[in-house]
Amino acid sequence: MKYERKISEAVIKRLPRYYRFLEDLMNMGISRVSSKDLSVRTGLNPSQIRQDFYCFGGFGLQGYGYDVEFLFNEIKKILGLDAINNIVIIGAGNIGQALAKYFPQQKKGFKAVGIFDVKPSILGAKIGELEIQHVDKMGDCIRENNVKIAAITVPSLYAREAVDMAIKQGIKGIWNFAPTELKEVPDVVIENIHLIDSLMVLGYKVNNN
Amino acid sequence: MKYERKISEAVIKRLPRYYRFLEDLMNMGISRVSSKDLSVRTGLNPSQIRQDFYCFGGFGLQGYGYDVEFLFNEIKKILGLDAINNIVIIGAGNIGQALAKYFPQQKKGFKAVGIFDVKPSILGAKIGELEIQHVDKMGDCIRENNVKIAAITVPSLYAREAVDMAIKQGIKGIWNFAPTELKEVPDVVIENIHLIDSLMVLGYKVNNN
Repeated sequence: MKYERKISEAVIKRLPRYYRFLEDLMNMGISRVSSKDLSVRTGLNPSQIRQDFYCFGGFGLQGYGYDVEFLFNEIKKILGLDAINNIVIIGAGNIGQALAKYFPQQKKGFKAVGIFDVKPSILGAKIGELEIQHVDKMGDCIRENNVKIAAITVPSLYAREAVDMAIKQGIKGIWNFAPTELKEVPDVVIENIHLIDSLMVLGYKVNNN
Repeated sequence: MKYERKISEAVIKRLPRYYRFLEDLMNMGISRVSSKDLSVRTGLNPSQIRQDFYCFGGFGLQGYGYDVEFLFNEIKKILGLDAINNIVIIGAGNIGQALAKYFPQQKKGFKAVGIFDVKPSILGAKIGELEIQHVDKMGDCIRENNVKIAAITVPSLYAREAVDMAIKQGIKGIWNFAPTELKEVPDVVIENIHLIDSLMVLGYKVNNN
């Protein structure tokens, strides 16, 4: 579902954090929350929180705070999590398999509908509910399931090729786990998860703290 | 190994990227590189690259460029990757198991030496070369292997408890995969990998592009 208002990049990046905290509050049976409480929980500035919520129609009342369920549902809609977002996984190594097991059903609005590789020895193996298929089959899976997002979990040497293949089949969003910088492609969004980079930074800081 | 010069946070974050690209160049048998070439590959500004390299003693020569192997080895030392950094993994779910399989030997300077959980049904199971042990055994493993870093791959509800336990046993760096904000602890470094947040941002952008 497309949300009508234009939301800035900085706000978008904070949305998942709000979403997680509001969900936690709902699970705890808490129906209202002040921007101050949310600030303590999220580490964000209370006036920034108020500004963000104002952006998407959340109005806090003095002495009452925000309606948790209303805000949760608004953010859910904005993030498109009221629909199912199907994803395919390219690369059935350790990370690819972990993702396939993590998103078997519509978890948090996302569902893995296919996992692909080229290695003959693993083709046909079952990963949770999915079977590892040859990448040649990817195009059909993408079209049949209206998939827009591909997780790239191949070695960095093959990342470019995997991305090109995915885009050719209609993919519009790349969730990149390969430890490499992908060249930007018009109309395609890339989000990088650079695991090793993050670990290296952590290692440096621990050794030099 | 402790590096003598003080390096800024911003430079530290770029180091892994340099390291990866220099390694790729070495693997391709390329012995020298200009800041301009590196800029094209990394997407960073050439003058920033020159400044960064100057920081840690890399001097490019006009018309020659930088010595790839020298720079690679310098950055390796700065990042402490010339030593083995042992890590423990707390939480033997999908992500924890993927990490255990990824770091069995000293891969990129890091080695998983223990994976821990509390679920009786999975204790004792072999994940690659490691056996899932009860968290009660974690302290011994940390001391015997001089472990400074713990990957937290438990559900967010248990993350705080897992972190407290790890810090009590001497852990100084937290590589957090739990989808929650951890409170800062003095003298402990936290690096977050918020997988679901990243996917949500990607989903939003794809749906609203």
